Amino acid sequence: MIGKFTVSVIVSNHFGVLNRVSGLYAKRNYNIDSLAVGETENPAYSRITIVSTGDDYMKEQVVRQLEKLHDVKKVVLLDPENSVGVEHMLIKLKAEGEAKADISQLINDYGGSVMDFSSDFITAEITGSSKKIDSFIEAARPLGILELCRSGLIAMIQGTKNIMSVANLDPEE
Amino acid sequence: MIGKFTVSVIVSNHFGVLNRVSGLYAKRNYNIDSLAVGETENPAYSRITIVSTGDDYMKEQVVRQLEKLHDVKKVVLLDPENSVGVEHMLIKLKAEGEAKADISQLINDYGGSVMDFSSDFITAEITGSSKKIDSFIEAARPLGILELCRSGLIAMIQGTKNIMSVANLDPEE
Repeated sequence: MIGKFTVSVIVSNHFGVLNRVSGLYAKRNYNIDSLAVGETENPAYSRITIVSTGDDYMKEQVVRQLEKLHDVKKVVLLDPENSVGVEHMLIKLKAEGEAKADISQLINDYGGSVMDFSSDFITAEITGSSKKIDSFIEAARPLGILELCRSGLIAMIQGTKNIMSVANLDPEE
Repeated sequence: MIGKFTVSVIVSNHFGVLNRVSGLYAKRNYNIDSLAVGETENPAYSRITIVSTGDDYMKEQVVRQLEKLHDVKKVVLLDPENSVGVEHMLIKLKAEGEAKADISQLINDYGGSVMDFSSDFITAEITGSSKKIDSFIEAARPLGILELCRSGLIAMIQGTKNIMSVANLDPEE
């Protein structure tokens, strides 16, 4: 079955590791829908969350091949039924005259908040599932999108289990 | 002066473009502090936000070299005084017994929200400046961090000016 899937990858904080990870996808023509990499609680490691689209075979291959890369410490394929995920977006909308009230209402309806505005635009931030972000974009499109910036999904295993212990890494060593 | 700096990059949605971008940093031993890539309002383009650390010379080089890459449509170096930026984090904390109240208080103080919990842990999401996220992590550390996942900064130019018009790209073509 073809669908989106998410992997969490813990890597050592060395030059070039992100390049090796993205190179793996590029070489095999695996498309990356979103990717977020940031520091962890331990300065020795970074964490990469990658969403891509493929079938079960590709999923398995991606995990197996990522695990073989230098500086990759742990790879976890997140089960959507058993993970907590959230995305984040900044979006700048045209907001002239009467459209202003509609836009404020829309931002309110989605639990967003206004980050910047003047007489002709509003920049808002929206947080939620990727589906909710998609839905906000579709609702905002007729109002006039100037630009937007999505963080990509960040996600982790539901419950007390965690990737650092699964990987036998000390989160604060 | 050495410091963190942020670039916004609009790229065509083709295989391998993220790999070329990360390769540029890797080849020159430029460290990437965080990177977020996601879809835009136009399916033809993705947007990458990269935070890295360097001096003025490196900043200039990064922008100039990114602009030369195939499939890179526009590069903007964001002026921190003149941009809107925000980061997002999922964090899983040990929460047994009396620590629970302290953790709930901390999440409240930072305007976060609880995403998942049981008798021994709490997973929260926190949104704000990278400084605010750093400060939450330091406050949470003595309570016991199980794992965390940061989105990396997403950011855009303040005001009505926007990267799609600067790049002469139709946001919804």
